[in-house]
Amino acid sequence: MPNEPAVKNLDSMEDVWDAFQSDLNEVEVQIHKHLHSHAPLINTVAGHILNSGGKRIRPLLLILGARMYGYIEKDFLLLGSLIEFIHTATLLHDDVLDEADIRRGQKTARRIWGNQASILVGDYLYSQAMALIATFHNHGINEVLADACRKMAEGEVLQLCANSQPDLTEAAYLKIVEYKTATLVAASCKVGGIIAGASLEEQAALYRFGLHLGMAFQLADDRLDYAADRSRLGKSLGQDIRQGMITLPLLHLLQTCSTLERTWLTEKILSHSVDDHDLQAILVLMKKLGSLAYATVRAREYVEAAALELEGFPDSTAKRSLAIVSCYMVNRDQ
Amino acid sequence: MPNEPAVKNLDSMEDVWDAFQSDLNEVEVQIHKHLHSHAPLINTVAGHILNSGGKRIRPLLLILGARMYGYIEKDFLLLGSLIEFIHTATLLHDDVLDEADIRRGQKTARRIWGNQASILVGDYLYSQAMALIATFHNHGINEVLADACRKMAEGEVLQLCANSQPDLTEAAYLKIVEYKTATLVAASCKVGGIIAGASLEEQAALYRFGLHLGMAFQLADDRLDYAADRSRLGKSLGQDIRQGMITLPLLHLLQTCSTLERTWLTEKILSHSVDDHDLQAILVLMKKLGSLAYATVRAREYVEAAALELEGFPDSTAKRSLAIVSCYMVNRDQ
Repeated sequence: MPNEPAVKNLDSMEDVWDAFQSDLNEVEVQIHKHLHSHAPLINTVAGHILNSGGKRIRPLLLILGARMYGYIEKDFLLLGSLIEFIHTATLLHDDVLDEADIRRGQKTARRIWGNQASILVGDYLYSQAMALIATFHNHGINEVLADACRKMAEGEVLQLCANSQPDLTEAAYLKIVEYKTATLVAASCKVGGIIAGASLEEQAALYRFGLHLGMAFQLADDRLDYAADRSRLGKSLGQDIRQGMITLPLLHLLQTCSTLERTWLTEKILSHSVDDHDLQAILVLMKKLGSLAYATVRAREYVEAAALELEGFPDSTAKRSLAIVSCYMVNRDQ
Repeated sequence: MPNEPAVKNLDSMEDVWDAFQSDLNEVEVQIHKHLHSHAPLINTVAGHILNSGGKRIRPLLLILGARMYGYIEKDFLLLGSLIEFIHTATLLHDDVLDEADIRRGQKTARRIWGNQASILVGDYLYSQAMALIATFHNHGINEVLADACRKMAEGEVLQLCANSQPDLTEAAYLKIVEYKTATLVAASCKVGGIIAGASLEEQAALYRFGLHLGMAFQLADDRLDYAADRSRLGKSLGQDIRQGMITLPLLHLLQTCSTLERTWLTEKILSHSVDDHDLQAILVLMKKLGSLAYATVRAREYVEAAALELEGFPDSTAKRSLAIVSCYMVNRDQ
């Protein structure tokens, strides 16, 4: 069957990067091609964060979603770069909201150029993405990406309101994760399907795949904040609880610890006074009560739910790659 | 001719508000209908600024652009509210950038709920607008509004970079005004035409009308900062120069004053040290050299250029209203 593309054996993310290097290179070309504002500061600030070592996971998911069907016209890879623009816009705003000085081991844009530049360049990247997305004249793509942007903003506001609320429920936490992280991952996968001419049912399966994967990714990331080797992650352990952010390991701990421990934890969260000594005590408690293991189990459940969504698609290098990317996103330790 | 709509005699903005009250009421209904986020804080913050007495000039321009052709389907008036969402998003971000405490005589959202909430609710309003605009499945509308958003962000960055630069040229200043203010006004007029089925030539004329009008509006606004009665405007005189913002009256002054005066002004601008006494001296100089009169003349030129764009359209209540709105936007003293 000469028209059947060969299905490659893939063992690792390196193999996936290799297999789709050409598409990813084109995404990179498009990213730089569309940073051409009249305002040189925009190109400088956006270039700083876009060149700071992001893994381009969302563009990769778009590519894989499309490559499950074979060929993608080169022009469509622009959409991968625009999704990266949207993601980068949220990072620029997040760093202002969190008063963050370091991202990916480098000074944040707001630290170098100030909050004003970070807010405005975020606004620019977001609207530049929307303006270029509109040129594709594809309602499905417009709608899924605009919806993702709206939900991301809502998720961030829900997170802001949940700050320092020890009574946050797991359901409310999961809604925040879905909105702030999973919807853009889901949209990336679905846009890949739309580009490649997938049916509405297949587009919906790709969206659900991405939604589960995005949930798993954020849960793993939230777990990592209590478990990562701080030198490899490039940031300190326990940043979330220090900022009053309540994530799954802490939720589990709050629900399973003794009344006395809960009172102590609540007081620490409300007063934003978690020091290194407190954090060590919290980590010991989490280990004892299995809070990190719980987060791992929940993340794996989402990965399994994601895998189920792909069952209907025929075997291909891209489909195998999606499985490897899923593992990579959840198991990374840096 | 029973099918010919009667052309009303209109004398003032009150007559215009009256003539299009029903459409404007529908815009108001749509504004509140689409503030229904899962995050109550979004509805509170957005409601605060959306109910703070904005004149709905952009929705009105959309209505008038469409009404020149007669009927508008009620559904299309949603677009007027979405343009107001976009405008409001820029105000929320502007207030964070300017550290503003008062807008329209009321405490700003950032003063009440903080910068984080203002940034995020701005992001939400912007993306909620984009998501709902996408549901109209109209490429022309998607493109002109996304382009306006991109240019607004670029204009704000250009303005940030021009801050405290006494060598700013008038051409660079006009580019900032075009991008940050005039493009959304132009887009509002053009969207009105698109809704009503205007030809591409007519849409382009409406866009140019709005662009000239938006330029005139911003020039008048910049002039007002040196000329307004402070009690009526609800803010202090000379805010722009105190923040290092160089606008047309100051540009004129810098280009026409003596070398000694220019040296003094430059030093004041660079050191952000304009006090009330300095401002009085600047106002006296501006009066002597005709800087405010110059800004008035330039604003009027734009109003005249705007009027020329409408010459090809037949007489109608809406067309007469556009002329009245033009005068109102440029001559308001509060």
